[in-house]
Amino acid sequence: MSKPAITLYSYPTPNGVCVSIFLEALKSVYPDNADLNSYEVVKMSIRDADIGQVHNQVKSPWFLEINPNGRIPTIAVNGFNVFETSAIILYLAQVYDTKKLFSYDPVNEAKEYSEMLQWIFFAHGGIGPMQGQANHFNFAAPEKIEYAQKRYVNETRRLYSVLETHLKAGDKEFIMGNKFTLADIKTFPWVRRYSALGIDLATEFPIVKAWVDRIEARPDVQRGLKIPA
Amino acid sequence: MSKPAITLYSYPTPNGVCVSIFLEALKSVYPDNADLNSYEVVKMSIRDADIGQVHNQVKSPWFLEINPNGRIPTIAVNGFNVFETSAIILYLAQVYDTKKLFSYDPVNEAKEYSEMLQWIFFAHGGIGPMQGQANHFNFAAPEKIEYAQKRYVNETRRLYSVLETHLKAGDKEFIMGNKFTLADIKTFPWVRRYSALGIDLATEFPIVKAWVDRIEARPDVQRGLKIPA
Repeated sequence: MSKPAITLYSYPTPNGVCVSIFLEALKSVYPDNADLNSYEVVKMSIRDADIGQVHNQVKSPWFLEINPNGRIPTIAVNGFNVFETSAIILYLAQVYDTKKLFSYDPVNEAKEYSEMLQWIFFAHGGIGPMQGQANHFNFAAPEKIEYAQKRYVNETRRLYSVLETHLKAGDKEFIMGNKFTLADIKTFPWVRRYSALGIDLATEFPIVKAWVDRIEARPDVQRGLKIPA
Repeated sequence: MSKPAITLYSYPTPNGVCVSIFLEALKSVYPDNADLNSYEVVKMSIRDADIGQVHNQVKSPWFLEINPNGRIPTIAVNGFNVFETSAIILYLAQVYDTKKLFSYDPVNEAKEYSEMLQWIFFAHGGIGPMQGQANHFNFAAPEKIEYAQKRYVNETRRLYSVLETHLKAGDKEFIMGNKFTLADIKTFPWVRRYSALGIDLATEFPIVKAWVDRIEARPDVQRGLKIPA
């Protein structure tokens, strides 16, 4: 057998499953695409103790050649390496989502593409980093720092409230309206982990809760969430 | 006189000047474009005490209609509102950089476009938020928290080291090689403020320092850095 066209270097964090969810979504609507059907996943260690590895693989020289930032997820598509979660799903969409079922044409649908990008950047620079810091100060930091714990949980709540208001206006099913797009795929893996931070999503942000449940019920999403096992 | 086609809502923060730098860069290479020549800037208050305003304008109802996240920069281009710094410069490039002098064609130059996006996302989700948190804990937080101060300055240093390694390989003039692109325009306004955090850029990251100096010397960049005055 020849080498797979797509290799995903990953770990089941919110950023990692974002890419596997999209690959599974693509596979389900393009069942005849050989690249998508044969994609391989390399489970990486991201901390010294992960998966029984002695070393933190994402900082090893061979991996830094693929991703200079030493992070998962990273993807190689026919020898072209892509890093940064959001850049990965945008490149996969450009190459494989030829019918633009989860995205928009960046030239002919410039406004819709921009609106999708705006929400991807909102998640990439807002929800992701801020919820990540909330997780750090609540679960990983060696000392308990109440100010920082509150700062990032409060900011996560504020960002969820922006999403709540957006979804409420026009009674939207998904971030872009009635189409499930990369904006949802980027944002959902973070927001679904709300309960770890003590956020009562059903009470505080019921519309976001319904959006999470709607996405989580999809079979492609369910498959993607379990990759890499 | 008719209403300008472009209205930029801004404040001279790293994110704010990113957009004004790009508008000035566009103006200098498309001198006959009427929209670019007539763009207007609305200076917003971003804290209660700014520019003598009683209220924090970015959280006021009229502004939240334009940007649901209540942040600067935000832009209106012929009635189309765009939020998130990186999404703004990408949309401006799509509409006004018709010769792709600062960007790439997302379809016909998909790999170059992706590589540029990767570095934009690296800055948007990495350098921006992390350096922003470093600034918060070093200059704004009501209590001195050494752990958090160090955490974010160290992460900022690590991210600069990734940029240093990238620029060093192949002796690059700019992030994408010898073309000044949106990736530089997004990253530069953050990195140029290194000294506030006690980072000795010339000693620690001399290649990044030369890159900062090279960009800062451009007349369009100089003009953009002063907008809004």
